[in-house]
Amino acid sequence: MSDEHDTLGRALDALGADECLELLATLSIGRVAWAGNDQPPVVVPVNYAVDEGDIVFRSDPGSKLEAIRGREVAFQVDFVDPFHRTGWSVLVHGVARELAADGGDAVHVDQWTPGAKAHWVRITATVVTGRRIRLPEVELDPRGYR
Amino acid sequence: MSDEHDTLGRALDALGADECLELLATLSIGRVAWAGNDQPPVVVPVNYAVDEGDIVFRSDPGSKLEAIRGREVAFQVDFVDPFHRTGWSVLVHGVARELAADGGDAVHVDQWTPGAKAHWVRITATVVTGRRIRLPEVELDPRGYR
Repeated sequence: MSDEHDTLGRALDALGADECLELLATLSIGRVAWAGNDQPPVVVPVNYAVDEGDIVFRSDPGSKLEAIRGREVAFQVDFVDPFHRTGWSVLVHGVARELAADGGDAVHVDQWTPGAKAHWVRITATVVTGRRIRLPEVELDPRGYR
Repeated sequence: MSDEHDTLGRALDALGADECLELLATLSIGRVAWAGNDQPPVVVPVNYAVDEGDIVFRSDPGSKLEAIRGREVAFQVDFVDPFHRTGWSVLVHGVARELAADGGDAVHVDQWTPGAKAHWVRITATVVTGRRIRLPEVELDPRGYR
């Protein structure tokens, strides 16, 4: 927990790993990121699901799959609330392992993009970090109004 | 433009650089990503603005600023429409340069998180790529109904 506040009473709190995993399970689009050799990262959205704490997503064959298979990658998810100007972000690091062809059968991952996406990738988190913007506490008026 | 279609008629189109820059200017939260030495990328949301085609954001001193200053980084923005299950994503690669203290005066960047954020960072894109999910064209009923 951060005690840093700005003049509007906002804070940026570090989230515990358990809380991060709970938040990950609330959404279904995240971003897988990997770094090439001496290249800046590539960051690409994917549809995902959480299965027993792991990130699971599907892929077609191609440069993404080749780049991440068996390598340590990042997986990032965030939620933004533009009305309250708040949100949270979770970052997972872990090795992206391709499952056997039937390895994803127990998991449903919605796909928004075309392609068979027959390759299932699972990231078991080794490091999970997250942050959330905390808004100032508002004292409730005794009548129930803010 | 991709001609790949799934059974529902969706496609994933590559976007041109001009279109990517136009889309970047429509949002104000993106993700800066950098790769450590033999480490998976770090991906962190920031408030940003587009100024003369460059990405501009503010930062406090710290590990992010140290890691990106003068280095080639990635900047990613996406838009997701969960109702139509569509969206787009844009990825910028470029060197993150810190501006002089007054270098950002002409640009307004909203800040949602606490901290003075006195350091201004500008990324001039060297490579811009993007993709958008294209939905099937729907023929309008002559009466105006779909």
